[in-house]
Amino acid sequence: MYNSECKLEVRYYETDSMAIVHHSNYIRYFEYGRSVMMKELGMPIELLEANGIMLPVVSLDINYQSPSKMGDILTIKTQFVNWPRVKILIAHQIYNQKGELICRGNVNLCFLDSNTRKPVRAPQIVLDKLESYFTEDEKNR
Amino acid sequence: MYNSECKLEVRYYETDSMAIVHHSNYIRYFEYGRSVMMKELGMPIELLEANGIMLPVVSLDINYQSPSKMGDILTIKTQFVNWPRVKILIAHQIYNQKGELICRGNVNLCFLDSNTRKPVRAPQIVLDKLESYFTEDEKNR
Amino acid sequence: MYNSECKLEVRYYETDSMAIVHHSNYIRYFEYGRSVMMKELGMPIELLEANGIMLPVVSLDINYQSPSKMGDILTIKTQFVNWPRVKILIAHQIYNQKGELICRGNVNLCFLDSNTRKPVRAPQIVLDKLESYFTEDEKNR
Amino acid sequence: MYNSECKLEVRYYETDSMAIVHHSNYIRYFEYGRSVMMKELGMPIELLEANGIMLPVVSLDINYQSPSKMGDILTIKTQFVNWPRVKILIAHQIYNQKGELICRGNVNLCFLDSNTRKPVRAPQIVLDKLESYFTEDEKNR
Repeated sequence: MYNSECKLEVRYYETDSMAIVHHSNYIRYFEYGRSVMMKELGMPIELLEANGIMLPVVSLDINYQSPSKMGDILTIKTQFVNWPRVKILIAHQIYNQKGELICRGNVNLCFLDSNTRKPVRAPQIVLDKLESYFTEDEKNR
Repeated sequence: MYNSECKLEVRYYETDSMAIVHHSNYIRYFEYGRSVMMKELGMPIELLEANGIMLPVVSLDINYQSPSKMGDILTIKTQFVNWPRVKILIAHQIYNQKGELICRGNVNLCFLDSNTRKPVRAPQIVLDKLESYFTEDEKNR
Repeated sequence: MYNSECKLEVRYYETDSMAIVHHSNYIRYFEYGRSVMMKELGMPIELLEANGIMLPVVSLDINYQSPSKMGDILTIKTQFVNWPRVKILIAHQIYNQKGELICRGNVNLCFLDSNTRKPVRAPQIVLDKLESYFTEDEKNR
Repeated sequence: MYNSECKLEVRYYETDSMAIVHHSNYIRYFEYGRSVMMKELGMPIELLEANGIMLPVVSLDINYQSPSKMGDILTIKTQFVNWPRVKILIAHQIYNQKGELICRGNVNLCFLDSNTRKPVRAPQIVLDKLESYFTEDEKNR
């Protein structure tokens, strides 16, 4: 399993009439967490796209535990749970500056060829980078 | 079960670099579907809030089936699945103008007292309006 | 001058901690007004793009007069002020259901060739449609 | 004049079908620049609101010079141009990682009492902090 972590500050326009972050924005924070992780893995999203690979979200689930609000500094934890093939499963947890769990969820994505829109295997550069983080057993599962 | 339906047109700013609607926006379309349904039920969200009741999302899941893009006219179908108590379960499906399923998902929400932030039962006005759509069996489940 | 008008309902996620529509969203409502107008003129934005023409915003100004909130039904008025050449000037005013002015502004846009990213003249289909709304004097200004 | 500066990374969902940051998002980046500046001045927006003061935008203008895209690291420069009274004028410029100007604009805001919704003078804490950055001449203008 590969772990990544980043921080972000809640922006004013991300709050709603309840004066808390709108629930749809955590889906966007998850995406930000993945983009930071992909950059760490040597394959930023914009480079993927420049190489003709898209990585759309196939499904996701999310559990909201506590609200967050303007001024909060959030930590987004992101994990590559399984050895990546055509699809990948990413887990996320978001905590606030007090260490309280704000929400957690799982996101399934799929590598696609931009031209054919057909599924393709995970790029070798990602596999090379991830290799040392997975056991042989995990890779063959 | 109570069914509601509304339409919306994809707006340009809702698309992303893949030239399709960003996946987080369907969560917002779901919310729009719920707000139309709550208005039909005589209890629009803004009236709920004026009466000291909040209705935050507790959890959700979503499956993305097909992309949608600028110019698409989407139909959002929204169902009150169970007889509402403190928590409610709302199901959504979004179709495009060709009848293709774009995505579907389930959203769990909870009625809260705005002051105490404690869970409360569904407002009577909602129950009265929903009554004829549920059998006695469904209400007692 | 060509006039267009459309309506939209404020969505919950468009409000902020002040329980009013976030000021950035009126810029998006303006865009929605333009997309409705372009469709009326036989040249929807997505068709423009499919024809290799982009129409980015070059500059804009906006004056906020009154707040709007969840539940408001807004009317967006959009005008093609000048005979279109490479650049176009669009004026917008937004009113609520009571006829109160919410905001007004001006947006300058520019037709661009998608490949060369060079400015190009307004498509003939737009000029043909607009012709009867402008005097010869206005066209030669 | 007081100068503030902060950085942010373009997020994927902020791009549109032209694969560039949607023009409305720069208005949001401006706001982020102001929130960082207000925090530096010892009066973060959330503290202002907790003290019953709102700071809505009254008007703004913006000039777009160059597009920015996924992966760009933007620098937001923010200036308190005039000595603050009831209204304040904030100037912003956004540059990319190559030092290219992306856009610049001016934003007028107004201090309001949250209860009465009447204009009020700038909080003393802000004036105290700004004092050394303005000459007597500038303060009396």
